[in-house]
Amino acid sequence: MVEYYLECITCGKKYKAEKGLYWCKDCGSIMGTLQIIYDYESLKKTIDRDSSFSERDSIVQFEELLPVRFSTDIDKFIGGTPLYKFKNKFGIENIMIKFDGISMSGSYKDRASIIAVNKALEEGYDTIFCASTGNAASSLALLSASTLLDTYIFVPSKIPRGKLVQLVAAGARIVPIESSYDQVFDISLDIGLKNNWYCRNSAVNPYLLEGKKTGAYEIIVQNNYEVPDYCIVAVGDGTVISSICKGFSEFYKLGLIEKIPKVLGAQAEGAATVKHVFENGKPYKPIIEDVDTVADSISVGNPRDVVKACTFMEKNGGYFTTVSDEEIIHAIGEMASETGIFSEPAGAATLACLKKLLSNGKIKSCDKVCLIVTGNGLKDVDALGELSNIRKYTVEEAYKLFEGVKYEV
Amino acid sequence: MVEYYLECITCGKKYKAEKGLYWCKDCGSIMGTLQIIYDYESLKKTIDRDSSFSERDSIVQFEELLPVRFSTDIDKFIGGTPLYKFKNKFGIENIMIKFDGISMSGSYKDRASIIAVNKALEEGYDTIFCASTGNAASSLALLSASTLLDTYIFVPSKIPRGKLVQLVAAGARIVPIESSYDQVFDISLDIGLKNNWYCRNSAVNPYLLEGKKTGAYEIIVQNNYEVPDYCIVAVGDGTVISSICKGFSEFYKLGLIEKIPKVLGAQAEGAATVKHVFENGKPYKPIIEDVDTVADSISVGNPRDVVKACTFMEKNGGYFTTVSDEEIIHAIGEMASETGIFSEPAGAATLACLKKLLSNGKIKSCDKVCLIVTGNGLKDVDALGELSNIRKYTVEEAYKLFEGVKYEV
Repeated sequence: MVEYYLECITCGKKYKAEKGLYWCKDCGSIMGTLQIIYDYESLKKTIDRDSSFSERDSIVQFEELLPVRFSTDIDKFIGGTPLYKFKNKFGIENIMIKFDGISMSGSYKDRASIIAVNKALEEGYDTIFCASTGNAASSLALLSASTLLDTYIFVPSKIPRGKLVQLVAAGARIVPIESSYDQVFDISLDIGLKNNWYCRNSAVNPYLLEGKKTGAYEIIVQNNYEVPDYCIVAVGDGTVISSICKGFSEFYKLGLIEKIPKVLGAQAEGAATVKHVFENGKPYKPIIEDVDTVADSISVGNPRDVVKACTFMEKNGGYFTTVSDEEIIHAIGEMASETGIFSEPAGAATLACLKKLLSNGKIKSCDKVCLIVTGNGLKDVDALGELSNIRKYTVEEAYKLFEGVKYEV
Repeated sequence: MVEYYLECITCGKKYKAEKGLYWCKDCGSIMGTLQIIYDYESLKKTIDRDSSFSERDSIVQFEELLPVRFSTDIDKFIGGTPLYKFKNKFGIENIMIKFDGISMSGSYKDRASIIAVNKALEEGYDTIFCASTGNAASSLALLSASTLLDTYIFVPSKIPRGKLVQLVAAGARIVPIESSYDQVFDISLDIGLKNNWYCRNSAVNPYLLEGKKTGAYEIIVQNNYEVPDYCIVAVGDGTVISSICKGFSEFYKLGLIEKIPKVLGAQAEGAATVKHVFENGKPYKPIIEDVDTVADSISVGNPRDVVKACTFMEKNGGYFTTVSDEEIIHAIGEMASETGIFSEPAGAATLACLKKLLSNGKIKSCDKVCLIVTGNGLKDVDALGELSNIRKYTVEEAYKLFEGVKYEV
């Protein structure tokens, strides 16, 4: 396996990889999330554009740049999601959309779960757990299902029926607790770590980000190493945007690209905590806010990866933008009807963000833009409920409708 | 483009390809569906195992065996779905699952829609239509969205909200008619053909089956040309199973495989019309039955492709088996919890069928079996409603649960 060490985002302290080591012992769980560092100079000698990676291969092709050995039956069908390329859509001459809604559980979280599952097996754990209300839970439950791992999912008891059903079908051991998501997260950490279970909680476990960074790798490889000017991604906890920054930065360090795309974070107006922390400036300090948005995957008031996200975004040179729920819902329809990509609300927030930045001149029509859509619209059909009020016809009316002139339906 | 002609399944009459030709003029729309025939001897000279096809490539790699030229921005992300391979699951030593729930619209129908969209563009149509309540509608609406085609979807007005919403998001022109699905189908044909729109109705247009046959091709290619003993697929209209038979048969004619897998059709006990027609024997005659099953994708009482399905299955040597709704629902959970594949009810019917054939000795544990799962479980979460009744815990109870001994949750 490739060599690496862990480094604290806040104090810079270095650690050797060790079973059960998730955060910096000096800085604590939220401030001291670790990142994984490789020997890029040495990797540079074996990795090149021509022979290392290919367009539709899975996450397994990046094994040299990941702190894990793949061993499950499903590994080679995780990652390798489509990068659609369109001309002249949404006012942009060349737009790309990376769509991770086409994935085993239908979201970007599969990239993290597959690392967690393999790492847990590699380190000899018999049980894995996470706290989640949504995509991370269904991703872990499904991706661990074919292995021998026991899987515990801690959820708030008011989890929507549809989401619960998917977890039950996957055979996960579900612990619905009468409490808020934030408290359920803390309870799961208490119980899981005490019982020596492997932790797949977003932002706590630094290995998860390593899986997520492969989305950035794929954007570059699938675009034949041409680097987009901007890459827009929705932000909740801050883990995905951190991973995108890290992925581009690593490809740069490896000499595979000559520049790094500017990464732009799309947040909902009603849940913009990471943006607030970023704009408050250094030193970045976690805060907790009340939030409310239709985009449930990014409805986070206590972003656990905010320090990492802000630190990485500062280095990248990107910034955050907010969009309203109305703009998000509209963007779901605009994306689907222009490209065929049916996104969950959080994914469509990237298009809403693009439209805003185009209208205020920060992005130009000749800029090369990539939107990252992290979840399938089928995950949250209810968010679009209002769209279902359309006119119905009797048989006679239907026939009349199409006699002679074409009518607008 | 590759050369081909059309041949009537019932009377054998041959036709040159012609714009607007969908069925045999002598036999009529249901009895006289056509099939597309290529010059296999000539194709044999250019197609081989070593260089023609690869594991994760899209439907585009089969262009030499398809009656269409690909021209849209999304073609190369249709098909190329996972073929998962597992050891010792469900009592089978070597089982494969082909999962088309991971696809642009989340179902096998994308293979047909992409052919229809490209064919409509190639022949200069400005409008395309279909009648559907489910997967075919969302597939066409999403796959035509990025093109210049106008898309009309005829649906019964009591279509579920969730399905309607997806169509509205895709920007399709929806015509909800207060009538049964069977009547809506006929109305759509009347209106669509009169207006000279391209027809994407399952079983009417013989080009659709050509897209669907690529699933069979991929099973062979992705399994390194090792042929499974059995291939199980759910049956509603009869188009998919016909296409699977044709795909295997063509690979055999091309000398790419030495034997053909036995194709087994899984039908719901409450909707087994194709099985009834098959077992009534030749000449196969369409019948109409009342049907009722939880598996809405195969809840078909007037199967439009029954003559083709029975004819092809007779040649293949396969047969049909029925499974109960209870077995189907149970199979969704069993498949998800053993493999991580979350299937819609119709797809899980294949596992229910396998279990039945194992228990009555028709399939043995050493047989190599492939299940074809045609739709994503996220398409129909409501079917699993009863699974959501699980116990909830207070914070104190949750902590107590994991003190000392591990509890069953």
